[in-house]
Amino acid sequence: MKKVAVILSGCGVFDGSEIHEATSTLIALSMRGIEAQCFAPDIPQYHVINHLTGEEMQEDRNVLVESARIARGDIKEIGEFSAETFDAVIFPGGFGVAKNLSTLAFDGAACEVNEDIRKVILWMVQLEKPIGALCISPAMIAKVLPQADVTIGNDPDTVKMIEEMEGVHHRTDNCEVIIDAKYRLVTSPCYMLNASIAEVFQGALNMVDEIIQLWNE
Amino acid sequence: MKKVAVILSGCGVFDGSEIHEATSTLIALSMRGIEAQCFAPDIPQYHVINHLTGEEMQEDRNVLVESARIARGDIKEIGEFSAETFDAVIFPGGFGVAKNLSTLAFDGAACEVNEDIRKVILWMVQLEKPIGALCISPAMIAKVLPQADVTIGNDPDTVKMIEEMEGVHHRTDNCEVIIDAKYRLVTSPCYMLNASIAEVFQGALNMVDEIIQLWNE
Repeated sequence: MKKVAVILSGCGVFDGSEIHEATSTLIALSMRGIEAQCFAPDIPQYHVINHLTGEEMQEDRNVLVESARIARGDIKEIGEFSAETFDAVIFPGGFGVAKNLSTLAFDGAACEVNEDIRKVILWMVQLEKPIGALCISPAMIAKVLPQADVTIGNDPDTVKMIEEMEGVHHRTDNCEVIIDAKYRLVTSPCYMLNASIAEVFQGALNMVDEIIQLWNE
Repeated sequence: MKKVAVILSGCGVFDGSEIHEATSTLIALSMRGIEAQCFAPDIPQYHVINHLTGEEMQEDRNVLVESARIARGDIKEIGEFSAETFDAVIFPGGFGVAKNLSTLAFDGAACEVNEDIRKVILWMVQLEKPIGALCISPAMIAKVLPQADVTIGNDPDTVKMIEEMEGVHHRTDNCEVIIDAKYRLVTSPCYMLNASIAEVFQGALNMVDEIIQLWNE
């Protein structure tokens, strides 16, 4: 049985992992008979957003503890990850990627990527194992992998940011997937477009199916 | 386009809505071309559980505010619900159903059900519109609807509780659905069994398909 690590960044689109993308990824892996293990860094969230009002709350929450909600408690600290034991890694989207796993939301193309996350990405590339990324995650990965071919859909500001990082952006519509053969990197836009949740699920499923293709090549 | 209300009880299996069941419900509705609107009561959570350790946290969270994470902000207070404008109502599971929407987790068969939730259930029955319920939710509904035919899978303690409420329990395996024709009530066990997330998704999809059947009868 193949094993895939799913890297979470909290629980909720505005300050953590996008819940529908993370759950769609887990459903898609399970449907294809692939074992999933969630991981997240044990760090404070950048902030907490009230998802009803959009306003910041005066609370402190932890990325690993909140990510555990999506994982039903079955989650490990990112430091425990080994590329030796996983066949692929997947990054769902959500602002947590741009606020907790990196400083993308604040620093754009000049952002920094969490050291543990950077290490996971480079380690997988070194072992020639696939990486999947949804929504805004491809922009973070473009920061780590020079000249990566990625898609985040068509948002002009994010496309510009990726190009400033010297990434190569490809415009896509709902459910479409871009494959970077040199890095074995599979990306799909999901909620970076105005997608229905069924389209988000299909995008995640298409990403998983392309990862399976890469295993079979 | 048919419209379905999805009633949430927080965000996370141990103190709120089960995230995979709620998301699977929303995906299934979207796949079938049905519009979804999330609702939750504006009440304090019974408590907050650290989903990494299983321990209670000294925090206060609000059911509507946390449910908004699953709904990406697109959620209404349960008091705004009208059975006139929805074609069905669905209750995903999670301990939030048994701790926030009712006192099932503490009082068993003698539990009380939140007045707004009770009203939603009875109003739908009165208008002969379908109700779907996953996981532990059928037990809460059995408290409101005498002699309801339901399933929560096969957990002996919960079956006994339902029978003490004079509900009629039917044993089921993963993805199976029980239909109570008199109440137009569709139930499926999901995570009340040792299900994979793909089975949970299939159970939610089967529930939605049976609701569509009830509309066509």
